[in-house]
Amino acid sequence: MTIDIHTHIVPQKLPTTGFSSLNSRWPQIELAPGGKTNVMVAGKVVRTINELCWNMESRIADMDREGIEIQVLSAMPALFSYWADADETAFFCRYINEEIARMVEYHPGRFVGLGIVPLQNPETAARELVSIKDHYRLAGVQVGSNIEGRTIGDPFFTPFFEEAERLGLAVFVHPVNPVGSERIVGPSLLSNFVGFPSETAFAAASVITGRVLEKFPLLRIGFSHGGGGFGMVLPRMIQAWEQFPAFREQLPQCPSEYGKKLFFDALVYDQRTLRYLLEIFSSRQLMVGSDYPFKIREKPAGASVASLNLPAEDKRLLQKENALRFLYGENIRNLEAI
Amino acid sequence: MTIDIHTHIVPQKLPTTGFSSLNSRWPQIELAPGGKTNVMVAGKVVRTINELCWNMESRIADMDREGIEIQVLSAMPALFSYWADADETAFFCRYINEEIARMVEYHPGRFVGLGIVPLQNPETAARELVSIKDHYRLAGVQVGSNIEGRTIGDPFFTPFFEEAERLGLAVFVHPVNPVGSERIVGPSLLSNFVGFPSETAFAAASVITGRVLEKFPLLRIGFSHGGGGFGMVLPRMIQAWEQFPAFREQLPQCPSEYGKKLFFDALVYDQRTLRYLLEIFSSRQLMVGSDYPFKIREKPAGASVASLNLPAEDKRLLQKENALRFLYGENIRNLEAI
Repeated sequence: MTIDIHTHIVPQKLPTTGFSSLNSRWPQIELAPGGKTNVMVAGKVVRTINELCWNMESRIADMDREGIEIQVLSAMPALFSYWADADETAFFCRYINEEIARMVEYHPGRFVGLGIVPLQNPETAARELVSIKDHYRLAGVQVGSNIEGRTIGDPFFTPFFEEAERLGLAVFVHPVNPVGSERIVGPSLLSNFVGFPSETAFAAASVITGRVLEKFPLLRIGFSHGGGGFGMVLPRMIQAWEQFPAFREQLPQCPSEYGKKLFFDALVYDQRTLRYLLEIFSSRQLMVGSDYPFKIREKPAGASVASLNLPAEDKRLLQKENALRFLYGENIRNLEAI
Repeated sequence: MTIDIHTHIVPQKLPTTGFSSLNSRWPQIELAPGGKTNVMVAGKVVRTINELCWNMESRIADMDREGIEIQVLSAMPALFSYWADADETAFFCRYINEEIARMVEYHPGRFVGLGIVPLQNPETAARELVSIKDHYRLAGVQVGSNIEGRTIGDPFFTPFFEEAERLGLAVFVHPVNPVGSERIVGPSLLSNFVGFPSETAFAAASVITGRVLEKFPLLRIGFSHGGGGFGMVLPRMIQAWEQFPAFREQLPQCPSEYGKKLFFDALVYDQRTLRYLLEIFSSRQLMVGSDYPFKIREKPAGASVASLNLPAEDKRLLQKENALRFLYGENIRNLEAI
């Protein structure tokens, strides 16, 4: 049994009314010539998608083919809509969360959902977490690595993390609006390939240096794409912490200690990279994640984990148990519920 | 015998006249209370240094203590001065290159020098390369990972790389003005620790996606700090190249092929990271580098390489032969000259 922690959905329809003001930045679905379905944001095609984004029957067929028992569903990050008024985004997020809840409902044994919240206002986002848990019955929340340029570990987001910890909701961090798009040389699609790993590295570093893990020791937070470049940033942070008293004064424990508390998906496409992550972190911190159903996805999901020749116990951890612990904590009753 | 490819110098004095216009941005040495020596740029202390930055006798004592046969000298990156008029910077760079040549001259068997050039104007920089080789007799040139925000692999720099390849000068890329300083959470010194690895990753990716390696197959180019996060970006670039025809059309070979042509120092402070780099790249691409004499330095230089328990041949490659090949190419007569 494998849980794929990193899969995306887009509802077949997105709200076209209900916003207090018309704004072409709201994500829209557009049916294009040739039977294509485009997701439009601010009038631009951000991705051409297909029914695998919303058709749960087709997804289950793929899951059965690839040996995936459970997909954890999260919105395509272009839907976050952090740019808008927080109450408007809350309305939009509830629509998405309702759709995700419906997708989970299609086959609760095969799907688990993560919601989205208007994190541009952390108090509003914190309030929405209650409905994510109690109304939509999702296991956690997916957030951007930065919110309109503010990195996720910034103290600005304290009210959100406080409530996520209190409610026991998992927080899954996905890159968006990646750092350094102005430093990419070549076609703009490279921003996703070259920029995402660095973006995720900044995000993971920020929850350490912003003391999120220090303030919220029970928080379960996971990073996509194997943490991006974070696994190579961490040794330098450790060296700096050991050599610079000014850094040690800011941070009670060595960055390596905080690093042990993080979860990561194993979406690195390379056995060597995966083995390195297992060395730098541990077999209790990595989870299968595929980016299904997008083109960059690992196919079949979990292929590199399956190919690693891990001891049976470690394989079980990576394929299933870490994901359950990330999603539900150590609480065994929750585990039995799914 | 170990060659330390990554050590910095600052001359004891910097020019205070000779610029056509006064500008407080030019780097200055300031003797501060308590016997401290500060490097000032634009009126701000960028680093407090000591005589190890210019006193070759003291450096040799450290080298003897740590078993370093040769230090490769490069200017502290804050001296690059890419912001100014290129001719003014050329004047400043010649001053620095002259100082580096003098330091090498102090004991030519123990030091090799890399110069700096006004890369804000690639044609001017290309002209200066001739004097770096013939007049100052340096082995190569150190350049920033970006020049005023423009990443080093940008086609803008083509005239520079063309001439570096023609002259057979090694190009050593060092992070400066790191990407994402606005995404650091915590004290600004973290920009160096968290930002540098991502900055270097962007730079290394750019010489692939900007087709520098495609255009200049004989160019010898090395990246500091183990390439930063590049070792974890590369597998994602490979996956993208395989999945996206639009990327393949831009780049004739898979990014993994270009990755094999790069040199990296081994300044990653961690045996596990170093072993990973050896897997992703090869034992012919890594060189000892320490960041001597700065606080973040590996101490003793080359400690992690020495501790790796490598086969004798690989150890020789990392400690010496790769550095010689990076500095002088395959030309054996040059090797014998030092």
